[in-house]
Amino acid sequence: MSTIHNFGAGPGILPKTVFEQASQAVLNFNNSGLSLLEMSHRSKDFVAVVDNSVALVKELLNVPEGYSVLFLQGGASTQFMQVPYNLMKQGGKAAYLKTGVWASKAEKEARLFGETVVVASSEDKNYNYIPKEYAIPADVDYFHCTSNNTIYGTQMKSYPNSPVTVVCDMSSDIFSKPVDVSKFGLIYCGAQKNMGPAGVTMVIVKDEILGKTARALPSMMDYTVHIKENSLFNTPPVFAIYVSMLTLEWVKAQGGVVEMAKRNQAKAELLYTEIDRNPLFTCPVANEDRSEMNAIFLLTDESKEEAWNTLCKEAGLHGLKGHRSVGGYRASMYNALPIESVEVLVETMREFERRNA
Amino acid sequence: MSTIHNFGAGPGILPKTVFEQASQAVLNFNNSGLSLLEMSHRSKDFVAVVDNSVALVKELLNVPEGYSVLFLQGGASTQFMQVPYNLMKQGGKAAYLKTGVWASKAEKEARLFGETVVVASSEDKNYNYIPKEYAIPADVDYFHCTSNNTIYGTQMKSYPNSPVTVVCDMSSDIFSKPVDVSKFGLIYCGAQKNMGPAGVTMVIVKDEILGKTARALPSMMDYTVHIKENSLFNTPPVFAIYVSMLTLEWVKAQGGVVEMAKRNQAKAELLYTEIDRNPLFTCPVANEDRSEMNAIFLLTDESKEEAWNTLCKEAGLHGLKGHRSVGGYRASMYNALPIESVEVLVETMREFERRNA
Repeated sequence: MSTIHNFGAGPGILPKTVFEQASQAVLNFNNSGLSLLEMSHRSKDFVAVVDNSVALVKELLNVPEGYSVLFLQGGASTQFMQVPYNLMKQGGKAAYLKTGVWASKAEKEARLFGETVVVASSEDKNYNYIPKEYAIPADVDYFHCTSNNTIYGTQMKSYPNSPVTVVCDMSSDIFSKPVDVSKFGLIYCGAQKNMGPAGVTMVIVKDEILGKTARALPSMMDYTVHIKENSLFNTPPVFAIYVSMLTLEWVKAQGGVVEMAKRNQAKAELLYTEIDRNPLFTCPVANEDRSEMNAIFLLTDESKEEAWNTLCKEAGLHGLKGHRSVGGYRASMYNALPIESVEVLVETMREFERRNA
Repeated sequence: MSTIHNFGAGPGILPKTVFEQASQAVLNFNNSGLSLLEMSHRSKDFVAVVDNSVALVKELLNVPEGYSVLFLQGGASTQFMQVPYNLMKQGGKAAYLKTGVWASKAEKEARLFGETVVVASSEDKNYNYIPKEYAIPADVDYFHCTSNNTIYGTQMKSYPNSPVTVVCDMSSDIFSKPVDVSKFGLIYCGAQKNMGPAGVTMVIVKDEILGKTARALPSMMDYTVHIKENSLFNTPPVFAIYVSMLTLEWVKAQGGVVEMAKRNQAKAELLYTEIDRNPLFTCPVANEDRSEMNAIFLLTDESKEEAWNTLCKEAGLHGLKGHRSVGGYRASMYNALPIESVEVLVETMREFERRNA
């Protein structure tokens, strides 16, 4: 079978070695004679997986003292409700930066728990840029933003100075580069881009911001319950946590998030340079806000769509179809995507240019 | 490596063929050249997995028209809050049957949403029986019970006539025998006993009981949102759903839940007969309430504990340690546990008797 270059937006590509280790663990975990899928989550071996995963997150992101790392379920969509449940005071307010569908959904869920203030929105240009001139009110309980917008191909390259706790949905660029965790009160992500498979959500939370709302919380919504139980309050998503651990071990072995950033910058530069140079393609995203994770590009001549799709297929380029709300194409270049795949994409773009000269 | 007989309480044993298929899918799913872990949940192949899983649940349990089947996240513990969120009216009430730790936790979470009425409890005898003489008030929004209590080894063999909607946590005996779904408004289960691996929760809900509370629901809590989106409102736990599908296919191929019931009865009878016959063992659970899934047994002479543990280890008997709140031993005999494993356990009990004669 010829090589497939997986540019899918997510669940996304993970390292081949991770797939091999995970596949083996399904048959026989740690040479125990048991499948990882039939083991108690209270077993010594699995508790070690959780502990190791937490330690890897802390090491890779240089998480300061006073923060807890959790592995939960329900994806970022559950965090959209869990964040205000835990952080919005009774009758409180929160500020949201509206940079796309996911940011909007987060804001919508928060409205059930209090008042929301949208400090800025890029909806006017179909979210093709990141708003920068806005003020965060000092009287809100937190400010929420989305670091990378998979659908629109935008990414925050810096974060605003905030008078209040900053909460960030980093689902699609966590572990792709260093991040100063100390600037955030809470970071969350669905794992299924750079961290692992679908089915586990990671939360990094500053302990001191919790327990201040006087709201009665259901146990599963309460971060403090999960902190106290080391993410083992109830049966966790065993396999998804294990595969995340393997992926984080891979990131570490490659040189950590500094090396990931280097690779991701190189891949993004290679692709955006070609999109900008090649007259058959165009990128609708503001230059300075272009995502290193998800590059959006359109055909300058839409009548050539079928020819381009065919060429992509022949080259083994997979998952390039853009999101329906933007159209065109999207190349997702998560950590595990080798630069060779981007080279094949760029070469295919050049071949497309030659054929249409 | 010698055979391991996995009597673990959960995540529990699944069929070997399921492990083999799942292991292969992690490397190359449906001969696509991609791992199941790096595929879009919106891909045709994965949507087919969800559709097939729903169809298998409906077929195996003979689910009537008017019910929806959902695959969610967060385990039964999340259902403890999601059930009252969706079914308890503002200022409403719900009735709970308290048969153990999980039933108690369910009742506790419901208190955040309204008033609860405990119709009966077996706490007086450390939950070693199922209460039977109780009345369910007609003015509550629903009656909640737990079909099988893994910790205490009790199981409901019949369900009460109820003037209100019956909600049942069937986490530990779903698919172990036929069930008349039409008698229930809502059935839920964490998958990790008979249905699949940890990380997915299945809900069967009668559509007409939903949308009656006038409560504003967060999207992830709202069953109607998930019904409308066919469990794909957000990224689902892809791998856990796939392994559940494989497990349900296995149940079907074996002869469905009627055959499962036959096998489970045979295994349970074999083991309980030996526990009752063998003077070195005793079962603390009321005869008529003994679970076919989890058999609790104690040593009549606790000083022989180490000798018994050693013998078990030598025989490859795994996961027999009882829950800390009951002590002793617990043999979980889920669908995938072959009767041969129970035969080895019974033979080991007889050997223990001979050695101590």
